[in-house]
Amino acid sequence: MEKNSSNMIHLTADSPNKPETVCIFGTGDFGRSLGHKMLQCGYSIVFGSRKAQTSSLIPKGIEVLSHAEAAKKSNIIIVAIQRDHYNFLSELTEVLHGKVLVDVSNNLKINQYPESNAEYLAQLVPGAKVVKAFNTVSAWALQSGTLDASRQVFVCGDDSKAKEMVMGIVRTLGLTPLDQGSLLAAKEIENYPLQLFPMWKFPIYLSLGLSAFLFFYCLIREVIYPYVYENKNVSFFVVISIPNRICPIVALILLALVYLPGVIAAIIQLQRGTKYSRFPDWLDKWMLCRKQLGLVALAYAFLHVLYTLVIPIRYYVRWKLNSYIISQIQNNRTDPFNYSTGWHSDSYLALGILGFFLFILLGITSLPSVSNNVNWREFRFVQSKLGYLTLILCTAHTLGYGGKSFLSASFYRWYLPAAYMFSLIVPCIVLIIKFVIIFPCLDRPLTRIRQGWERNPQEFKNSNYNGSNSAV
Amino acid sequence: MEKNSSNMIHLTADSPNKPETVCIFGTGDFGRSLGHKMLQCGYSIVFGSRKAQTSSLIPKGIEVLSHAEAAKKSNIIIVAIQRDHYNFLSELTEVLHGKVLVDVSNNLKINQYPESNAEYLAQLVPGAKVVKAFNTVSAWALQSGTLDASRQVFVCGDDSKAKEMVMGIVRTLGLTPLDQGSLLAAKEIENYPLQLFPMWKFPIYLSLGLSAFLFFYCLIREVIYPYVYENKNVSFFVVISIPNRICPIVALILLALVYLPGVIAAIIQLQRGTKYSRFPDWLDKWMLCRKQLGLVALAYAFLHVLYTLVIPIRYYVRWKLNSYIISQIQNNRTDPFNYSTGWHSDSYLALGILGFFLFILLGITSLPSVSNNVNWREFRFVQSKLGYLTLILCTAHTLGYGGKSFLSASFYRWYLPAAYMFSLIVPCIVLIIKFVIIFPCLDRPLTRIRQGWERNPQEFKNSNYNGSNSAV
Amino acid sequence: MEKNSSNMIHLTADSPNKPETVCIFGTGDFGRSLGHKMLQCGYSIVFGSRKAQTSSLIPKGIEVLSHAEAAKKSNIIIVAIQRDHYNFLSELTEVLHGKVLVDVSNNLKINQYPESNAEYLAQLVPGAKVVKAFNTVSAWALQSGTLDASRQVFVCGDDSKAKEMVMGIVRTLGLTPLDQGSLLAAKEIENYPLQLFPMWKFPIYLSLGLSAFLFFYCLIREVIYPYVYENKNVSFFVVISIPNRICPIVALILLALVYLPGVIAAIIQLQRGTKYSRFPDWLDKWMLCRKQLGLVALAYAFLHVLYTLVIPIRYYVRWKLNSYIISQIQNNRTDPFNYSTGWHSDSYLALGILGFFLFILLGITSLPSVSNNVNWREFRFVQSKLGYLTLILCTAHTLGYGGKSFLSASFYRWYLPAAYMFSLIVPCIVLIIKFVIIFPCLDRPLTRIRQGWERNPQEFKNSNYNGSNSAV
Repeated sequence: MEKNSSNMIHLTADSPNKPETVCIFGTGDFGRSLGHKMLQCGYSIVFGSRKAQTSSLIPKGIEVLSHAEAAKKSNIIIVAIQRDHYNFLSELTEVLHGKVLVDVSNNLKINQYPESNAEYLAQLVPGAKVVKAFNTVSAWALQSGTLDASRQVFVCGDDSKAKEMVMGIVRTLGLTPLDQGSLLAAKEIENYPLQLFPMWKFPIYLSLGLSAFLFFYCLIREVIYPYVYENKNVSFFVVISIPNRICPIVALILLALVYLPGVIAAIIQLQRGTKYSRFPDWLDKWMLCRKQLGLVALAYAFLHVLYTLVIPIRYYVRWKLNSYIISQIQNNRTDPFNYSTGWHSDSYLALGILGFFLFILLGITSLPSVSNNVNWREFRFVQSKLGYLTLILCTAHTLGYGGKSFLSASFYRWYLPAAYMFSLIVPCIVLIIKFVIIFPCLDRPLTRIRQGWERNPQEFKNSNYNGSNSAV
Repeated sequence: MEKNSSNMIHLTADSPNKPETVCIFGTGDFGRSLGHKMLQCGYSIVFGSRKAQTSSLIPKGIEVLSHAEAAKKSNIIIVAIQRDHYNFLSELTEVLHGKVLVDVSNNLKINQYPESNAEYLAQLVPGAKVVKAFNTVSAWALQSGTLDASRQVFVCGDDSKAKEMVMGIVRTLGLTPLDQGSLLAAKEIENYPLQLFPMWKFPIYLSLGLSAFLFFYCLIREVIYPYVYENKNVSFFVVISIPNRICPIVALILLALVYLPGVIAAIIQLQRGTKYSRFPDWLDKWMLCRKQLGLVALAYAFLHVLYTLVIPIRYYVRWKLNSYIISQIQNNRTDPFNYSTGWHSDSYLALGILGFFLFILLGITSLPSVSNNVNWREFRFVQSKLGYLTLILCTAHTLGYGGKSFLSASFYRWYLPAAYMFSLIVPCIVLIIKFVIIFPCLDRPLTRIRQGWERNPQEFKNSNYNGSNSAV
Repeated sequence: MEKNSSNMIHLTADSPNKPETVCIFGTGDFGRSLGHKMLQCGYSIVFGSRKAQTSSLIPKGIEVLSHAEAAKKSNIIIVAIQRDHYNFLSELTEVLHGKVLVDVSNNLKINQYPESNAEYLAQLVPGAKVVKAFNTVSAWALQSGTLDASRQVFVCGDDSKAKEMVMGIVRTLGLTPLDQGSLLAAKEIENYPLQLFPMWKFPIYLSLGLSAFLFFYCLIREVIYPYVYENKNVSFFVVISIPNRICPIVALILLALVYLPGVIAAIIQLQRGTKYSRFPDWLDKWMLCRKQLGLVALAYAFLHVLYTLVIPIRYYVRWKLNSYIISQIQNNRTDPFNYSTGWHSDSYLALGILGFFLFILLGITSLPSVSNNVNWREFRFVQSKLGYLTLILCTAHTLGYGGKSFLSASFYRWYLPAAYMFSLIVPCIVLIIKFVIIFPCLDRPLTRIRQGWERNPQEFKNSNYNGSNSAV
């Protein structure tokens, strides 16, 4: 779906209305790639280097001068040098005075240095206007034109005019500048490309932890127990049967955990009688990773669907069905059709299908391009109303799957209940609290609180203002 | 996938190149959130309030002044007050003269007031340049930085410079401004956040109506009839069997309705001999919701696939297969393999699979981010060529499913034909008309008409120019 | 999810701060649509036409003047005329001197003329500043407001101020301008709307070619062979059984071809001892269509999953299972449960499920809106680490499916091995080379080479710098 737009770009031969010259310090990979790309977009480029001689690696038509000479030619200097080599820049303080210095550097580790590279640069060259930019863009992406990953360029700096100039360049290169404020933001901008799904860590670790626990629980109950008591070897259960027990449980628990912080927040607000008090930190963090929790839950639900749909293809299942038929015949017996089983089996399957369908809908609406095209009312309708409906359907599916079996004693092996029963605890809590909250006697004060009403209004509170009111 | 970018933003301590000051009237939730966010993005903020005293809720470093004093400090005043409280602004007419007033208000109902809030504001403060903006953004989103829903900010106003200033602020906050023209557009901008999927209403109501009708039809034919005549209780059919009959029928009808307006438009154009005449209103509206119709159809098709794939897991199906085998054995009979049934069963399954596969492809290309990356020729190739292929495959799948059974009299219960036959009417009409239209004798004049040729050219026509030519 | 934003736009009645006037030459479909849209967005429009008289087709409030008169009224003239009719413009050279001429034309064929329309226009009117723009936008999209396909407007031109003016208009219309450099880029911009998935051609033709070959191979081995030797007619296999053999094979081969260029590039870099030498052209091209290869592979994998999941519904399969049971009973024999078969069957199914699950994840992250929201480290983690894991799982799934059967002679019909064995060649090669490369003795020099280290450093090389270092 992505066009290779690099083919569509031509070097500016001799534009009548000459555009501004940009100086790049450093002829390394990134400096050259950026220079090449800027040349394509109509800029005039001059390189500043220790060795002021051009090489075959430098795109044609670009001069390579000494740092000082190159800096004189332009008002914007892009510093494409590693932080370790910044020192020499302090000697150029005079030449660089009043000019815009663009720091494009990245580190190898998160928080590698006490101050960010951009702030360090600003200290070295006090008179220059330092702007942090371009560090999220890769050399390979600039060269090949296949900007599959982020087109976002985070920009920060203390001088707004300098920042605006850099953002103009970013736009001309076909990238999207995002103003991140003052140079203090440089640290986090420098950490950004080193991050690996920070918002996903908690949901993924949680789900893996749950999966591991449930795996061993099921292993004991469904593989080791039959082996010990019935001398039945069903070790191959670990391949499909047990995963297919783990997936729905984790999916349902995670889905309930998406909605649990909302009801907790409601309780806190009702209790405090105001929305202008900060939630505990863990609750704030939890609320911010609800989307990720939901998507991990969807992944588990998807696996559950696949594992379930291959059931009739499995050799074990076919063999079991066959022996059942053969045993019926050998005993000259025909099991009659059981209506209640028919109803029961179809019902929980249908609930599961509808739940999964809504779950997929929720997943699609959380795609950035889709959620960008709905307004807040629509987004909340889908994520809140349809979300609760999904939770209700999936909980009912699990309840229906279990049926009345938890009443019989034989159901408890080594006094351990079936694993699916764990999955029901959190969803049931969430649904019960939600059910209580929507009663008018609680819903009305809650609505008023969220509209700004306070039970004990105070002009000066010690709490900071909280940011978690309208989406719970 | 969404980064929490709020962490990356820092308050501007003391920028050397001080950015413009923005004044915000009103220290409510939205005013504070907007002020906080603008402060983060480097603006200088001053609040105007009835009580000119700061509170702990106001971000540090922001002055709270009286309305008049605050207004003097800035050229842009954001009015974050509810419409009911606008009255006092008429007293400030002098101070606000020539300044940009940004109306961010929303109403509780669609078309709550005769004129839009922004127009009302413009009447109250005649000398000010009123711009409508920011009403689609939620306070929660501004605070938490998780702009999951729309980043689009609709902007309108009569003064283009004032509008440009506001659009600059919108861009700095990382949002996307969309110029909607003059202040007359404010009414619809104010209605926008109150809308709940307006384009989806018709497709969804239509599909629900169809589903309800088909449900009762199938109930009579497949549950009540066997109960009355054969005393068979198959009430559990309402859970999976009947939904799995409804879903494919609704999906196919809706898919055909996506392509029906196109062929109707072609007939109208052929008949009128020109494309420069307006289509009837219903046809224009129908054409604009084709995408939504198609996606609802895809949802039904998806459910049909899920319902079909669980068939072998259903207790009823297993029991039926078992009794079939047992009856074969008890009668000491072995049904030979029927080649034509083998061909027939595999064929309609394969047609269904291919149809569903293409349907999914169509769905993916209608994702905003995907359709943004294809050119018109590619978009039309997928939506028109592949769309018709999908319709052909799905119609063939349904025809194949039915087979020759509609010929036998026993097939009609209470003279009612099987439900699936309804689903074939619209698709067959569409396909037949389309087949006729692509004959050269009709295709050639149609192509010429769409390129602008007219059978009876007139310089002055009474009709307005129509907007439905190239995509049919 | 797409709002019909056209409803939200109103004509500017009488703006106090009158915006600039834009002149449009040509009152054809596109000229009128563009004029209408620009009028809505607050521009003042004047048409230039041969017949200087307004018609009912022209939006109200727009003057239609002669070309020369209209051109005098504005600094920007949009030339919405076909290239064939450009000639008369040379007579207007004087009037057009110094003005911005926007070429919006398209051709009917790729590379229809020796020079692009925009360059031809620049030759005809030497004094004007020609800018190419708007050719990717359709008249229908402008009118209906449903810009489902590309909002991207490629802009190029030799005068940067003129280009900036046009890009401003593009932004005001709610479209996204993309600066493509000097007027030399016009040729490719004009070819762009005529392209039909250029990056997809190779992957699609390759997959279709492979599919055709495998179809005939399987036809011989699985339909013709049994017919000749066993007189068994299984011709209906061509509908589902053989496609379900082709799909996984093609999917696996294509998936391996996504990762093959990466390991080839690594070998080349290791051998040359530098990354600063250009890869062969075929390798560069191959690397640029890896995403498309992967997505076509995913489509085949999806079909394979669907074909597999309908297996238990197929009449043939049901009949075969039934006759197996009946034969057991008639022979009074009960096949015991085979543990190793149980393990084997479940294992390769589970591998396939996990492989498909990761494959879907890879597909989702290649959606433009998703990949735009991850940083490079995350993108490479998903596409490289998870990608290789997918390849390993899918290869293991295929190996597991085959099991030990390839050892038995009866397995080879007419000396032809089973088709699935072909699918294993490329993946195994890729995985073995990759396995060798990640050994420290090769990985360490490779990492250093990719960081810029050279075995035989030369200051002046004949090779151009290469663009394929960091993503392999």
